[in-house]
Amino acid sequence: MNKGFVLWFTGLPGSGKTTVAKSVKERLSNIGFRTELLDGDWVRKTINPDAGFTRDERRRHLIRVAWIARLLARNGVAVLCSFVSPYRDVRAEIRKIIEEDAPFIEIYTKCSLEECIRRDPKGLYKKALSGEIKNFTGLDDPYEEPENPELVIDTEHDGVEENVNKVLEKLEEANLIRFESSDMGMSGEDKVTIHLSRELYEKAEKFVKESGGFSNVDELVEFLLNEVLAEESSEYKLSKEEEEEVKKRLRSLGYL
Amino acid sequence: MNKGFVLWFTGLPGSGKTTVAKSVKERLSNIGFRTELLDGDWVRKTINPDAGFTRDERRRHLIRVAWIARLLARNGVAVLCSFVSPYRDVRAEIRKIIEEDAPFIEIYTKCSLEECIRRDPKGLYKKALSGEIKNFTGLDDPYEEPENPELVIDTEHDGVEENVNKVLEKLEEANLIRFESSDMGMSGEDKVTIHLSRELYEKAEKFVKESGGFSNVDELVEFLLNEVLAEESSEYKLSKEEEEEVKKRLRSLGYL
Repeated sequence: MNKGFVLWFTGLPGSGKTTVAKSVKERLSNIGFRTELLDGDWVRKTINPDAGFTRDERRRHLIRVAWIARLLARNGVAVLCSFVSPYRDVRAEIRKIIEEDAPFIEIYTKCSLEECIRRDPKGLYKKALSGEIKNFTGLDDPYEEPENPELVIDTEHDGVEENVNKVLEKLEEANLIRFESSDMGMSGEDKVTIHLSRELYEKAEKFVKESGGFSNVDELVEFLLNEVLAEESSEYKLSKEEEEEVKKRLRSLGYL
Repeated sequence: MNKGFVLWFTGLPGSGKTTVAKSVKERLSNIGFRTELLDGDWVRKTINPDAGFTRDERRRHLIRVAWIARLLARNGVAVLCSFVSPYRDVRAEIRKIIEEDAPFIEIYTKCSLEECIRRDPKGLYKKALSGEIKNFTGLDDPYEEPENPELVIDTEHDGVEENVNKVLEKLEEANLIRFESSDMGMSGEDKVTIHLSRELYEKAEKFVKESGGFSNVDELVEFLLNEVLAEESSEYKLSKEEEEEVKKRLRSLGYL
């Protein structure tokens, strides 16, 4: 089971937070993570249809998102949150809530206001500049740059792929994702989970440490299965008698 | 990976919703589920510190909870929601939201108002009867009994254990939990997951079917590990040379 975490993307409207987050989500999903993207669209569609944009309303809905991200992350989900989240003190509150239960990675998508206005993917700057929208971050409401984010990505000059790779490198550095040697050979995106009793697992773990030939129980099991499958057509093809013997053994061990 | 679902406990204040939910949570956790309990205490501590008790406020915070339960359940969590949730139409809204993504089981904890007033575990009826609390369900605000809940438990006359078992039976009936033969022998409450490449898993599955001695791959793996561990001190204790051999083999298979 993967350990969950929260990636919190903060930056000006139109700076590319959700674009990068969606791409990171896909990559994480490809290596076996359960993932969820929480952003303004999700919040307005679900828990806060009436969300306003005053300082206090913004704070309240972000705190809600923080609690939800925390619940998901502690259940193994990689949670990507994409919100302008302009206030430093509110981001500190969010970090505090999440870090009690799960790793929190703050990612600042850095892009100049001029470039965001030029791109204006949702036409919001245009509306804000004409006075149709009030309290718009970057124009009549401040955006407070993060002082110590875990990562800054330059969405003004670098391409999406480059920035996605930077996020994944950061996650690897923080030991939140692993590209193990075994993953590479086994195409990490395509794994199946099986269950062992803890008692047996612990015995096997001890054996792995003592024998020194394997780096973990997964590897030992893969090895044993490969051995059996290689010998399949010869000695491991069970006769009726051997089958009975196996069943008897399993029964005595308590599996049947 | 277990499939998630939502158990929604509804009933009068003091009818025993959370008591049963906590006990069910523990049992589910013992058979390997990730679980979360969402109740009024959690909501007030986290996403809705300012939750009021008017009809509209109750509705809004329950709809939020529904969306959160849905997110968790679709990521494999068994979610237990314990809320008076007095209005039939709001419960119908909740069901609709959750069922788009996960199974929803409505459980009515049936207990007479008289008995709830007699028990009054939090002293709330006393406060409500003296006028200190307004809009109190059962007194000056209606509780609308479910018309077609998945399950009714009689918390007035039946004990907690009996009711917990009824909930688990309902879950088994709905194919949301399984007590497999292998679970029983191996103390289902304490399992560890390991990961195999799908390719190897499928080969092993084929072998299991053909050899006929095991009912699934998990069982084959348990058997192989037990074999190895039994022989540990003799032939499977690897010498330096054998260790090299194993590593070579693993490398050739792509695991190292």
